[in-house]
Amino acid sequence: MSTHPLEELIHPRSLAVVGASASGRGDGFLSSLVQQGFKGVLYPVNPKYSEVMGLKTYSSVRDIPGSVDYVISSIPAAGVLELIADCAEKEVKIIHLFTARFSETGRKDAAELEREILRQAKKANIRLIGPNCMGLYYPAEGIAFDRGMAKKSGPVGLISQSGQAVEEITGLATHRGIYFSKAFSYGNAIDFNECDYMDYFAQDPETKLILVYIEGVRDGPRFLNSLRAATAVKPVIILKGGRGEAGTRATASHTASLAGSREIWNTVVNQAGVITAEDIKELVDIALAFNFLPEIRRRNVGVVGGSGGSSVMAADLCEEAGLNVIPLPDVIRQELKKTGNSIWDWISNPADFSISMGNDSSARDVTKLMAAHPDFDFLITFVSGPWYLGPEIFSLEQHLKRYSLEDIGNKPLVIVFQDTARYYIDDDKMAEYNKIVTEMEARFIGASHPIYPDIKRAALAVSKMISYYERKQ
Amino acid sequence: MSTHPLEELIHPRSLAVVGASASGRGDGFLSSLVQQGFKGVLYPVNPKYSEVMGLKTYSSVRDIPGSVDYVISSIPAAGVLELIADCAEKEVKIIHLFTARFSETGRKDAAELEREILRQAKKANIRLIGPNCMGLYYPAEGIAFDRGMAKKSGPVGLISQSGQAVEEITGLATHRGIYFSKAFSYGNAIDFNECDYMDYFAQDPETKLILVYIEGVRDGPRFLNSLRAATAVKPVIILKGGRGEAGTRATASHTASLAGSREIWNTVVNQAGVITAEDIKELVDIALAFNFLPEIRRRNVGVVGGSGGSSVMAADLCEEAGLNVIPLPDVIRQELKKTGNSIWDWISNPADFSISMGNDSSARDVTKLMAAHPDFDFLITFVSGPWYLGPEIFSLEQHLKRYSLEDIGNKPLVIVFQDTARYYIDDDKMAEYNKIVTEMEARFIGASHPIYPDIKRAALAVSKMISYYERKQ
Repeated sequence: MSTHPLEELIHPRSLAVVGASASGRGDGFLSSLVQQGFKGVLYPVNPKYSEVMGLKTYSSVRDIPGSVDYVISSIPAAGVLELIADCAEKEVKIIHLFTARFSETGRKDAAELEREILRQAKKANIRLIGPNCMGLYYPAEGIAFDRGMAKKSGPVGLISQSGQAVEEITGLATHRGIYFSKAFSYGNAIDFNECDYMDYFAQDPETKLILVYIEGVRDGPRFLNSLRAATAVKPVIILKGGRGEAGTRATASHTASLAGSREIWNTVVNQAGVITAEDIKELVDIALAFNFLPEIRRRNVGVVGGSGGSSVMAADLCEEAGLNVIPLPDVIRQELKKTGNSIWDWISNPADFSISMGNDSSARDVTKLMAAHPDFDFLITFVSGPWYLGPEIFSLEQHLKRYSLEDIGNKPLVIVFQDTARYYIDDDKMAEYNKIVTEMEARFIGASHPIYPDIKRAALAVSKMISYYERKQ
Repeated sequence: MSTHPLEELIHPRSLAVVGASASGRGDGFLSSLVQQGFKGVLYPVNPKYSEVMGLKTYSSVRDIPGSVDYVISSIPAAGVLELIADCAEKEVKIIHLFTARFSETGRKDAAELEREILRQAKKANIRLIGPNCMGLYYPAEGIAFDRGMAKKSGPVGLISQSGQAVEEITGLATHRGIYFSKAFSYGNAIDFNECDYMDYFAQDPETKLILVYIEGVRDGPRFLNSLRAATAVKPVIILKGGRGEAGTRATASHTASLAGSREIWNTVVNQAGVITAEDIKELVDIALAFNFLPEIRRRNVGVVGGSGGSSVMAADLCEEAGLNVIPLPDVIRQELKKTGNSIWDWISNPADFSISMGNDSSARDVTKLMAAHPDFDFLITFVSGPWYLGPEIFSLEQHLKRYSLEDIGNKPLVIVFQDTARYYIDDDKMAEYNKIVTEMEARFIGASHPIYPDIKRAALAVSKMISYYERKQ
């Protein structure tokens, strides 16, 4: 368990959703908590209802009979000061303000109300998440804010100024086999801010990798310190929102953030040894590499399984991503010659599988020899979706056998899954096709092979991961 | 009709597939031709069979009773000289040599055989496509080399040194609403080469846009001339294979190409005013912009439909792609104020649709005003896959109405389709979800709006298209 002040606040025995209703967003929180199986007691609060989702509903937090540890506010901004007074009386420890329309509106009165909320909360010894955010996702405690969020926990922590970014990142990541310890969406961050969440994750034993979507930093020097401390113990991958002029304008109206100049930001990030991503897909791509691959400290890649054109393009894209596509070691060629392989003097790295290599046993030989050779630090292999074999689709086992994944020993392996066969499959075979694809992906993920949709994204992600380990060395 | 020498060769009245068999690649050509509805007479040739796919099969080309215009060779390299002698006797005009294992093997004897084949073909007045390639795709004539290739024709021409690249490019493109006039996969290109195909497409009235996958150029100055002539009349988008050291090695064993240095290549491309792509996805992305959008000559983009975080990220990614994300013109704010829009002073460009903008009519107002304003050269709008509305999925019509696509007048519109809702849809709703997605995409494509999977790819593709028109001006 972490010793950070946040730790004791995120294991509530009871939780009130203020503004819960049969329709609208408040209900989204309540139904997500019910669906996730929140471990404590749930109290809907709304003077308009006596019952929401079958749960007794209270007019105000004051009316709740038992104690309340954690409050989610989805009422309008005008009601928040009264809510804080109610929460003070109930000795609530933390309020997550989903409530918005504060400083991000650019209006003076709204910004003043935001400051007053912080003053009153401090007086009452209540800590705040937000306002203007989706709050906490903590699957082990059954806390989530969208009904589709995974119940399974994993080693990845997420800090995000945007709530939608949490939903997108966790959705994409979960679909690709990554699970989360906790995620914080923190919006305007008037109390707990990006530094607090960073400090928390840095020393959270449930978290091995930290992902960040951030628009603006309130206290640059403190943030740099937090970042440095975090990157010293675990990888931090940051997607910065508001890198340019238009983005900076947009951050102001989104989370009232001062995005700061690109130059200062780049300096901070470089000094701290942070890994950066340009968009959400890249953030998840890099996370995938850390999540599934061991520590790789050199850049020599062996590429197998593509045809002629894709081998050429793979070589370019790997090099442009900063990987070394080394020539095939001669000892491998000699081994292939010994086994009577007719194209022993033609085969190279990338290993083009389109000609005689279409022969499965030759392909397996090459993969196996590359996996066993110490010059290759890792392999990238192209895997296709199921193809027709005459009128039939390969079975899952036939398909997996083609890729000889059992012969690679401990060599780290990255998979580029080429699902373009999908465009040619007859409609009546689509269900069967999808079933095999899903099973193949599950097997690869189960064997700790990260899956990418193309070689460019695979190469960039792994290269950025290697940069982190190189720096650490 | 084109006056290029290729023109009369690609409308064969009769076509022989030499090496056709009940299994293996030869059969792939034959079955593709049958499935595409090839307009002429088809002759399978193989001494081992008397019938393939229900068609009378001949022992050799000499035995075919009628005349033969076009021959596809899928026999081994050792039989090609005899085939040419047979074809000479039958006055065949063109042979597509799928047959491989020539100069690309790096072996002297194989390279010498390749040269002898060219000499013999020249003597017999036979033109050659290839060797080591997939040949011609010409949907209007019913000529294709993979059973999944579209029968529909379109305005895009494709030249590709790699056959697999043709399959990948046409598969991806067709799926996104782009169709082809013709495609040539040309491999080792010992007779017709990249310059001939470029010259052909430059003056082909069926082709408005030329896509190229190229590994190496045989005659640099001639290629530069061909490129210049082509780009003077229509856009040319090139994906170069073999840009770096490893890629150059790979091109040698793939198509026996000398890739040339990156610097010379970049000079050629810049001088000719060619658009370049880094990988197949980007090639198709740019083609999509040309295919569906009108001529756009300035870079001012309006972005609508995202939530807070995605608006910030969209602004960054658009700027980084070279677009101008201009501030919202004040006249639009004043119009919104007049209509009583409560966030008239908060809304910006990108227009964040997450707060009161969740109100559909406000969102439609903003989109309509941006579409009508002359400062915006085009719009990018985020469109989500179907969401739950309580237990229901929006209908197609409800969904389309949200995006006010009927109110945009003549403003060019690019769609970023966010299909992440897929990850949250219950299994029993998936068929309904997919059906709506398919219908939505078909409607958007029907209305000439290109669809991209993320804003980064959309912005880069449109920016590259605009560069072409800027240069042309």
